[in-house]
Amino acid sequence: MTGEFDIIRKYFAPLAADFDGAFNLGDDAASLPALETVITKDLLVEGVHFRARDSRSSVAKKALRVNLSDLAAKGARPLGYFLGCVWPLGVKEETIAEFAVGLREDQDQFKISLIGGDTTAHIVKGAPLTISVTMIGALGSAGMIRRSGAAPGDDVYVSGSIGDAGLGLAALNGEIKFAAAHKLYLAGRYQSPSPRVSLGGALGGHASSSIDISDGLIADAGHIAEQSKVAIDIFADKLPLSDAAQSWIEKADDADAALAQLASFGDDYEILFTAPATRRRSVELASQVTKTPVARIGTVVRGKGVRLLSAAGAPIAVARAGFDHFAG
Amino acid sequence: MTGEFDIIRKYFAPLAADFDGAFNLGDDAASLPALETVITKDLLVEGVHFRARDSRSSVAKKALRVNLSDLAAKGARPLGYFLGCVWPLGVKEETIAEFAVGLREDQDQFKISLIGGDTTAHIVKGAPLTISVTMIGALGSAGMIRRSGAAPGDDVYVSGSIGDAGLGLAALNGEIKFAAAHKLYLAGRYQSPSPRVSLGGALGGHASSSIDISDGLIADAGHIAEQSKVAIDIFADKLPLSDAAQSWIEKADDADAALAQLASFGDDYEILFTAPATRRRSVELASQVTKTPVARIGTVVRGKGVRLLSAAGAPIAVARAGFDHFAG
Repeated sequence: MTGEFDIIRKYFAPLAADFDGAFNLGDDAASLPALETVITKDLLVEGVHFRARDSRSSVAKKALRVNLSDLAAKGARPLGYFLGCVWPLGVKEETIAEFAVGLREDQDQFKISLIGGDTTAHIVKGAPLTISVTMIGALGSAGMIRRSGAAPGDDVYVSGSIGDAGLGLAALNGEIKFAAAHKLYLAGRYQSPSPRVSLGGALGGHASSSIDISDGLIADAGHIAEQSKVAIDIFADKLPLSDAAQSWIEKADDADAALAQLASFGDDYEILFTAPATRRRSVELASQVTKTPVARIGTVVRGKGVRLLSAAGAPIAVARAGFDHFAG
Repeated sequence: MTGEFDIIRKYFAPLAADFDGAFNLGDDAASLPALETVITKDLLVEGVHFRARDSRSSVAKKALRVNLSDLAAKGARPLGYFLGCVWPLGVKEETIAEFAVGLREDQDQFKISLIGGDTTAHIVKGAPLTISVTMIGALGSAGMIRRSGAAPGDDVYVSGSIGDAGLGLAALNGEIKFAAAHKLYLAGRYQSPSPRVSLGGALGGHASSSIDISDGLIADAGHIAEQSKVAIDIFADKLPLSDAAQSWIEKADDADAALAQLASFGDDYEILFTAPATRRRSVELASQVTKTPVARIGTVVRGKGVRLLSAAGAPIAVARAGFDHFAG
């Protein structure tokens, strides 16, 4: 195995070549120009946030994309990221090379740069690959979209489709059987979330609140409700579903319960947001211009908490709202 | 064990209360005003960067201080930090509480704030506590002090004393015996490095290059030499030593070899910097004003690499320059 500095020079410095203040990773710190920024940090741990058998290239992309998704939900344009990796004991150089390929592909796709970071290795056998990404975004004149701006009467929207990542994980683990094409699609939704970077950038000044869906639609709507001091009603029959998810619902004994499950699955990395009813045309335009599907799925009301309502207007029981790393 | 959100609310949100853009950790991201910033990121892994038996409060401080030290070496004033923690499986709430106490004490001492972060837990038994800190500093008008500005003829300086942390670790592990007072002092130097935040802030406009000593004096001088495309001569008899280190040198069979070892130990978190000879008075003043000892230990010359020279001017062999996480 090559040494630490060679690894940085060979695999990581090229990823920082386009960012002046990264100094080719040859200094102790990076320097950033005076910009109003939004910063987010998400950790990924093997076995918790990705599977041991997932390709290191897809893991690299996921680490970037969960952070890109956070910035998108805040209406920020991504600039670059700081990367911290703790590799397993005895990691092979090819593994790091493959990880760097994933970073490069997503840097090109999302026009971002590596800015700085730290690389080290475990000394305990079996300790998992741990990845920490801190991502920096620039704000437009409309400022950051908070979780706390939703007001009674606002519409509730979500991008893309709901529950696919959870079904994808279940499909990969063999817990649910799908037709081959559906399995491929759902697995991709779990392994390579598509952060809604363009849509997020277009929502500034229109959305009253926003969050990306990582804990699950219901749980994340709960975060908006809590921070905005409102309640949120979501209409189960308005939830946007992929063909694959639709096929699963159709086979379910209890369609409402199945919808509730989709609304509880995490890792979708869609944007859940609210906007005043006067902004319906602006939201539609943002969706069209950025070629991102957006569905109106609910309404903000006075009160507390989140209700999932059937077509008949009856509350649907939601068993489990999101994943808690410390529950037990 | 309380849930993830309760942990954040109870232990971490209070640490972010003073920073407006942290939104009490109640949003997906933090927002920072338009400032010219320096950003650094350092990972700490249990067993690699701190010992399993070190108190979680001292570990919290070390995680902050290694990053504060990076900012100090760049001439930046620390503002705040993003914190990522991966706790061991089954971590107790008291452990997290103790960790938060350490953060609070250092936040007060160094006038910084928690700005954002992420907290999760391992699902593999025996996987170590892993801490990722990304720290943000503000730059004065003199800009960032790079590694690359040293020029032939410059003086080489170092703050504080050299090799204490390495001796401290050896003392803690029972590999070297010291008098009780010396052991206590050295252990403190290993477990609670004192980042030279004030001195760093006073060196802007005077130092031509700078780095903090984490890999070891010789190795870090090597980083400056490489980035500045110069050679560095260090005079062994000018190395500033603590009383404890001095007592160890006096007992050594080969004093030069022992000095070389001190100059190879990592984790000192002193500032190693260069400045033109015309700035000697400015450096002296910076040292006085910030009450930080500074020793002139060498000179920058044309060429490549770092030489440790005896009082007679003969090169002293240096066995091992710094620690490589991937060597093996």
